[in-house]
Amino acid sequence: LRNLANEAALLAAREDKARLDKEHFSQAFDRVLLGPKRDEVITSTDKRRIAYHEAGHALVAMIEPEAEKPHRVSIIPRGQTGGVNLFTPDELRIQHGISFFKAKLATLLGGRAADRIVYREPDAGHENDLRQATKLARYMVTHWGMSERLGPMSFRIGEEHVFLGKELQEPRDFSEGTAQVIDEEVSKLLREADERAYQLLVENRSTLERIVETLLVNEELDRAGLEAIVNQQPDFSVNGSTEPLADRPLIVKP
Amino acid sequence: LRNLANEAALLAAREDKARLDKEHFSQAFDRVLLGPKRDEVITSTDKRRIAYHEAGHALVAMIEPEAEKPHRVSIIPRGQTGGVNLFTPDELRIQHGISFFKAKLATLLGGRAADRIVYREPDAGHENDLRQATKLARYMVTHWGMSERLGPMSFRIGEEHVFLGKELQEPRDFSEGTAQVIDEEVSKLLREADERAYQLLVENRSTLERIVETLLVNEELDRAGLEAIVNQQPDFSVNGSTEPLADRPLIVKP
Amino acid sequence: LRNLANEAALLAAREDKARLDKEHFSQAFDRVLLGPKRDEVITSTDKRRIAYHEAGHALVAMIEPEAEKPHRVSIIPRGQTGGVNLFTPDELRIQHGISFFKAKLATLLGGRAADRIVYREPDAGHENDLRQATKLARYMVTHWGMSERLGPMSFRIGEEHVFLGKELQEPRDFSEGTAQVIDEEVSKLLREADERAYQLLVENRSTLERIVETLLVNEELDRAGLEAIVNQQPDFSVNGSTEPLADRPLIVKP
Amino acid sequence: LRNLANEAALLAAREDKARLDKEHFSQAFDRVLLGPKRDEVITSTDKRRIAYHEAGHALVAMIEPEAEKPHRVSIIPRGQTGGVNLFTPDELRIQHGISFFKAKLATLLGGRAADRIVYREPDAGHENDLRQATKLARYMVTHWGMSERLGPMSFRIGEEHVFLGKELQEPRDFSEGTAQVIDEEVSKLLREADERAYQLLVENRSTLERIVETLLVNEELDRAGLEAIVNQQPDFSVNGSTEPLADRPLIVKP
Amino acid sequence: LRNLANEAALLAAREDKARLDKEHFSQAFDRVLLGPKRDEVITSTDKRRIAYHEAGHALVAMIEPEAEKPHRVSIIPRGQTGGVNLFTPDELRIQHGISFFKAKLATLLGGRAADRIVYREPDAGHENDLRQATKLARYMVTHWGMSERLGPMSFRIGEEHVFLGKELQEPRDFSEGTAQVIDEEVSKLLREADERAYQLLVENRSTLERIVETLLVNEELDRAGLEAIVNQQPDFSVNGSTEPLADRPLIVKP
Amino acid sequence: LRNLANEAALLAAREDKARLDKEHFSQAFDRVLLGPKRDEVITSTDKRRIAYHEAGHALVAMIEPEAEKPHRVSIIPRGQTGGVNLFTPDELRIQHGISFFKAKLATLLGGRAADRIVYREPDAGHENDLRQATKLARYMVTHWGMSERLGPMSFRIGEEHVFLGKELQEPRDFSEGTAQVIDEEVSKLLREADERAYQLLVENRSTLERIVETLLVNEELDRAGLEAIVNQQPDFSVNGSTEPLADRPLIVKP
Repeated sequence: LRNLANEAALLAAREDKARLDKEHFSQAFDRVLLGPKRDEVITSTDKRRIAYHEAGHALVAMIEPEAEKPHRVSIIPRGQTGGVNLFTPDELRIQHGISFFKAKLATLLGGRAADRIVYREPDAGHENDLRQATKLARYMVTHWGMSERLGPMSFRIGEEHVFLGKELQEPRDFSEGTAQVIDEEVSKLLREADERAYQLLVENRSTLERIVETLLVNEELDRAGLEAIVNQQPDFSVNGSTEPLADRPLIVKP
Repeated sequence: LRNLANEAALLAAREDKARLDKEHFSQAFDRVLLGPKRDEVITSTDKRRIAYHEAGHALVAMIEPEAEKPHRVSIIPRGQTGGVNLFTPDELRIQHGISFFKAKLATLLGGRAADRIVYREPDAGHENDLRQATKLARYMVTHWGMSERLGPMSFRIGEEHVFLGKELQEPRDFSEGTAQVIDEEVSKLLREADERAYQLLVENRSTLERIVETLLVNEELDRAGLEAIVNQQPDFSVNGSTEPLADRPLIVKP
Repeated sequence: LRNLANEAALLAAREDKARLDKEHFSQAFDRVLLGPKRDEVITSTDKRRIAYHEAGHALVAMIEPEAEKPHRVSIIPRGQTGGVNLFTPDELRIQHGISFFKAKLATLLGGRAADRIVYREPDAGHENDLRQATKLARYMVTHWGMSERLGPMSFRIGEEHVFLGKELQEPRDFSEGTAQVIDEEVSKLLREADERAYQLLVENRSTLERIVETLLVNEELDRAGLEAIVNQQPDFSVNGSTEPLADRPLIVKP
Repeated sequence: LRNLANEAALLAAREDKARLDKEHFSQAFDRVLLGPKRDEVITSTDKRRIAYHEAGHALVAMIEPEAEKPHRVSIIPRGQTGGVNLFTPDELRIQHGISFFKAKLATLLGGRAADRIVYREPDAGHENDLRQATKLARYMVTHWGMSERLGPMSFRIGEEHVFLGKELQEPRDFSEGTAQVIDEEVSKLLREADERAYQLLVENRSTLERIVETLLVNEELDRAGLEAIVNQQPDFSVNGSTEPLADRPLIVKP
Repeated sequence: LRNLANEAALLAAREDKARLDKEHFSQAFDRVLLGPKRDEVITSTDKRRIAYHEAGHALVAMIEPEAEKPHRVSIIPRGQTGGVNLFTPDELRIQHGISFFKAKLATLLGGRAADRIVYREPDAGHENDLRQATKLARYMVTHWGMSERLGPMSFRIGEEHVFLGKELQEPRDFSEGTAQVIDEEVSKLLREADERAYQLLVENRSTLERIVETLLVNEELDRAGLEAIVNQQPDFSVNGSTEPLADRPLIVKP
Repeated sequence: LRNLANEAALLAAREDKARLDKEHFSQAFDRVLLGPKRDEVITSTDKRRIAYHEAGHALVAMIEPEAEKPHRVSIIPRGQTGGVNLFTPDELRIQHGISFFKAKLATLLGGRAADRIVYREPDAGHENDLRQATKLARYMVTHWGMSERLGPMSFRIGEEHVFLGKELQEPRDFSEGTAQVIDEEVSKLLREADERAYQLLVENRSTLERIVETLLVNEELDRAGLEAIVNQQPDFSVNGSTEPLADRPLIVKP
């Protein structure tokens, strides 16, 4: 299979080798058939770290009034990213305004915020969250006209489409100066969401701890379980208000 | 079918997965055969939001003296964009001057203007409007000599053509400094049209509301219906004048 | 036929659709077989606008001493551009100096000048004129050493050649700063030609009107007809002089 | 075999020749079958230099509290790089924070630090170390949000993926100004790690020498051997502290 | 034949048409078989202009002490460029210093200089001369270390090579700032050569006229003929000196 | 043969012709079979010039303490470059420090230095030396961490690799500002080496002359011959010291 050859090539590339050997093909065979191997045993330290990360996402989503609410949160390892896939941008394109997406950004950065609060440093494990948040912020700025500085204008940001069975790469269609403003606007949205998520979790630290303890016992929590924990907490606060929870679903995959 | 494989690949890409599985192929099969799935049920809140958006386009078109007039406006969901496809640039290339295209820009941004007036924020749903308006404004500036600052000069903006069965990508043929001026001129046209659409809808707010109410009842309005509503309104005004409606058609697809 | 598929794809692309349907193929079939459809009926308003545009080209060519003289001018719609194809750059490369090409630029912008004089705004219909004039001005500056600021130097401006049956794309071979100077020099040539054409037509407005009236009656005018009109006009002037008409042909296709 | 042709072409390219001859094919044949030829005999001077380099990596890893510990260190030449392959970035992505990766950077630059201390100049032999360290630092800054200046944002840095059997090259998606900040942040991380490794080895010079002497005798040292040497040294110090050695493995290939 | 299709495509492209018709194929057939058509009749005005141009090249070459001397000069039209192909860069690479190449640049710009002296403006016909001179000046600066400002350094300027049957496009390998300096150095070499050629021809105007008159009668002049004219002229001067003519050949094709 | 077609195409390209004719194929046939033709007869002037150039390389290598010593120096013309191929970068990557490579740079620029001393100008014949020296200096700065300003960082400079039978072009991964610093650091290394080579040859001019005279008589000199000449000279000096010659070989091909 061609796929097999590609996998083998990738493995070789990772080791910076110029030639393939049988070992690469053998490993590639396993990957193509069985999926990437995950360590079977996770230490309890790592489990706790994952739990804080996932709880961070979930709690920000529960608290932010405009955010979609999670169906379930889990720390069972599965697939590549180990936990959260919040949305597909295409599905969200219609009918949502800027505040909805700001809440989404805060939710996406909720895991990172929890890491920073508990472990005092950002964690390489949120790579995918960062990528998704950045992608969403770029869309808000370049496709949805949500930056005052850039105004009602659309920017083609070098995406590739598959069209009629071949790729058309459409190059960037704006100037370097505009690219700079776009970067600044995207950065501003992300910093604000990061700050917001951090602050929310600090204010609701004991709720965060309770979710983590429950996750370490049960490995999963559904919507009802999350609501029970959130509502019963004395320190639950959103800048002082106590919003009823909105009811749009947020898919939190384990 | 090759198409099928592409669709499946796209679905996998959306989920940031490196491998295709049967589920992707199955979803792709549905898409290729049946078209992208739309949610069958739209909430009444969403329906109202769509109605304001479409009414915004339609009303700006009716009021702007130079604008093409819509055949029909509709809130029945269909296809990808959910409502409006105002023009194909190629068909408009001949015989129209700058004021015609400025009216077109205002019409394209009419939906966004209505969102901002009613919901106080821009909406991700106007992505396509923004793209079309930006494309038109770029054409005005780069191909039709309609910017005083850039003068009677044509700029190749990196489009691709299919020519003799193969793509020729012609690269940008001007400097970074010129790219900056082009961006500024395009932005200026779009901001002015945005402002104009916003102002027109504020001045004719009650007409906008009447169109929305009618759309929520009937789901569609034809040209005659629109004219009836517009003409009967006491607050109908275009900067004070009361222009007779021009009679070139504007296709507003549902 | 492959061509058919391409046409269909282009039609789909115009409507921003990701898939082709039978309608696209049917339209494409018509286009490939019959050529692009033109509206059969042109309003008298549009006819007049076309006449002014074509007369603008022709009159500048007749008046400019260095310009090639038109064989014929016509307002019968045919093909894509609806009227004028003045030259092929390759044929002109030998034996002509800078003043010849400046006259050519003025002729190319003569249609736009007429639009501005009569309709008070530039017109999207001169897209092709702008492209040709810009291309010529770029050649003068980058290939023919006709800019004092850039001097006796040749610049490769990213053209593609078909060579031995495959495209070689040669990238730009100069710096950003030089690209800026090239843009400025090209712009200067075009602005001067635009100004010149505008001024010539204002000075000879009544001749322009007479050509237009004749075109609206006859639809075509040959060289002799043009000369008759130009010579009989009392206000005929080229900055005061009355040059005999040079006799090199200028192909003005209808 | 195609591979053969490529190898031959590469050999020809190295000698700047435009044509292949039989000698190239013969050499290429050897390379494809037997792997790149290494000199059989290494002088004792070179052996000592290699030993310092490898001991530098190993000692920094042993001393840095957060660093993964080496399984083995060796000076037996094998393969292309002659000694150390510390990690594959993908395997590290989850659960590690910024201090872990800073220790990793110091370990990677430990060989270079030893060269500088002993031979007073950087050495071309650490090319691969530099590449890996730079790659890791770029990931920290662009994918893992570990730069204060750039904040919680992800940057696509022009990598290629093999996807569905074809490469998709995704271009850079940020501005020149942002690229400059990224370079500065990456450089800062690397300079700090370089300084740290240098300082640690200076402070533990006699331990370094003891590892080198042992390597020159035994050619390899396993984890236990390294620990024995490190623990028995009177001058063992990590900024004064005496951390117990952590127990995560670090693969140091010979 | 594929070639035929390409020729036809090029012809269509020149007329900015999207489709090929039989006429294009017919014209293309002629081109592929018979070579590009040249007008059979050249006016005497044009003949004189060509004669000045070719005489300009030849006279500068005869006068410049370091320049290669022409075998023959001719005004018989043949092939595309109508007259002069002075050298192939590859053949000159060895053993020549900067003064040799400066003389070459002056020779290449000699035709343009004659045009400017006699017709008071540069001429589109020297496009090929400009391209060759620029290419040579770029080589001097980027490959032969002949610029003081850039020093002993080689710059890869984006050339393409055919290697092993496929193109390798090697991108530019230096910064924008360096590109700017290269442009300035190339421009300086070309301006100096242009100035030198102009001055030499002004000083030897009557010799130039005599060569032209002879060419208009004979259509060709060989080396001996050129020498006879040059030596017999009273105003022959090279900044006062009277160098014996060097004897390296310079191929001047008609 | 495909190769044949390519050669023919290259020949046509050199003459700026768009079509191939039989002559091109005939010449190409000779090239592919017999190698590029070299003039059989070299004038004594050219021979002397070559001798100075090669002697320049050899003498710098003999004098520089850190430089590899030449096996042989020759002025017999062979192959394309006519004389010297000092090293392949890949073979040098291990175990050498910055001073070794600086000596290598001086050796590479030794030919140019001799040209400048004897003929007062740089010579186009050292194109290949410049390219190799620049490539080495770029490697020192971008891959081997040998620039203080850039520090311990690796830079991907747009090289292409053949990997798994297809090229992967990896684009530049750093900013414009960094590119500027790289250029400056590379330039500094080259200027210093150029200066050093020039100075060494001036100081040892009579040794240079003796090597040249011997070469003109014998056409080749081996290592022993070179040492005999160098050691017997009274003016032999390396900044005053008299280093014993190191014994690593330096291949100087004729």
